[in-house]
Amino acid sequence: MPFITVKMLEGKTKEQKRQLIERMTEVACDTLGVEASKVFIFIEDLEKDNYGKNGKMFSDQEPN
Amino acid sequence: MPFITVKMLEGKTKEQKRQLIERMTEVACDTLGVEASKVFIFIEDLEKDNYGKNGKMFSDQEPN
Amino acid sequence: MPFITVKMLEGKTKEQKRQLIERMTEVACDTLGVEASKVFIFIEDLEKDNYGKNGKMFSDQEPN
Amino acid sequence: MPFITVKMLEGKTKEQKRQLIERMTEVACDTLGVEASKVFIFIEDLEKDNYGKNGKMFSDQEPN
Amino acid sequence: MPFITVKMLEGKTKEQKRQLIERMTEVACDTLGVEASKVFIFIEDLEKDNYGKNGKMFSDQEPN
Amino acid sequence: MPFITVKMLEGKTKEQKRQLIERMTEVACDTLGVEASKVFIFIEDLEKDNYGKNGKMFSDQEPN
Repeated sequence: MPFITVKMLEGKTKEQKRQLIERMTEVACDTLGVEASKVFIFIEDLEKDNYGKNGKMFSDQEPN
Repeated sequence: MPFITVKMLEGKTKEQKRQLIERMTEVACDTLGVEASKVFIFIEDLEKDNYGKNGKMFSDQEPN
Repeated sequence: MPFITVKMLEGKTKEQKRQLIERMTEVACDTLGVEASKVFIFIEDLEKDNYGKNGKMFSDQEPN
Repeated sequence: MPFITVKMLEGKTKEQKRQLIERMTEVACDTLGVEASKVFIFIEDLEKDNYGKNGKMFSDQEPN
Repeated sequence: MPFITVKMLEGKTKEQKRQLIERMTEVACDTLGVEASKVFIFIEDLEKDNYGKNGKMFSDQEPN
Repeated sequence: MPFITVKMLEGKTKEQKRQLIERMTEVACDTLGVEASKVFIFIEDLEKDNYGKNGKMFSDQEPN
């Protein structure tokens, strides 16, 4: 515990994901008083065709 | 709010996904009284080997 | 298929949920070409203390 | 974006949740280069009867 | 690994949940070759007003 | 009902997934008293760069 899922647009670098995992684990340990070995993080890369906001597909809203 | 996740078998067209996003947003706005900018939709494409029903893998149940 | 999860703030009425289920099922049938019996909808009521936006707890952002 | 879900055992205080929301948002902004208004956090309180580890129900593993 | 989430209608007994946790862990260990300590199970109790099938709210489909 | 999601590291064989689906369905039927046709199983393959434990990316912890 805790189990943290981060759903975000595809395209982040491996280094960004490393930082995200490291620092989110720190925050969880500090605020919830748990050990790092008890913190699990799952990242979900969301394709731009699979994300809708404002009634539109995200990939349709990007400048060509 | 709201955040809507649609898990469905892989293989839908981009246009089907567009329609799904557009019309689901409309339904959410109408029934929940929110603005379209507050409605988020995530589509998850499920591979046929990763879906089980009736104790069987979906891809095993398809006619060859 | 499909399996639709709607995560939204607590407090919606039973009738709003009914409408949401009915009309989301229609949209799924129309756009994905499936029968209503194949459409499953799960609603998740989110408590205001359990929702964070803009770095703040939602319940902290409400006028008292 | 991003959408962050934190599933954790029930019983955390409101202040712990505030800290979690605030600091997780900071980490997301720093590492992913997004604004705080684009970061959404959902907390899920897990009941001890609904959590299993090592083949056992968590509530069965607690000292009485 | 693995992390198993079971979403089911509210109302199951504690003993049913115990059995579910125990036996699902066994299956995961046998089929995936992992130790029981690496298997995590989350149960989600779904309220009958929050579950829709066939375009209808589940609680509306129950005999009074 | 029930809807079972299994999140696990990528790389399992198709036969392992078949076994997982078959035997998890049996467990659900036995313990919850439902028919196999009512049990739905979703498998999520987790990439090693998208899984964090102990503050580290899983792929960084593997021997080269």
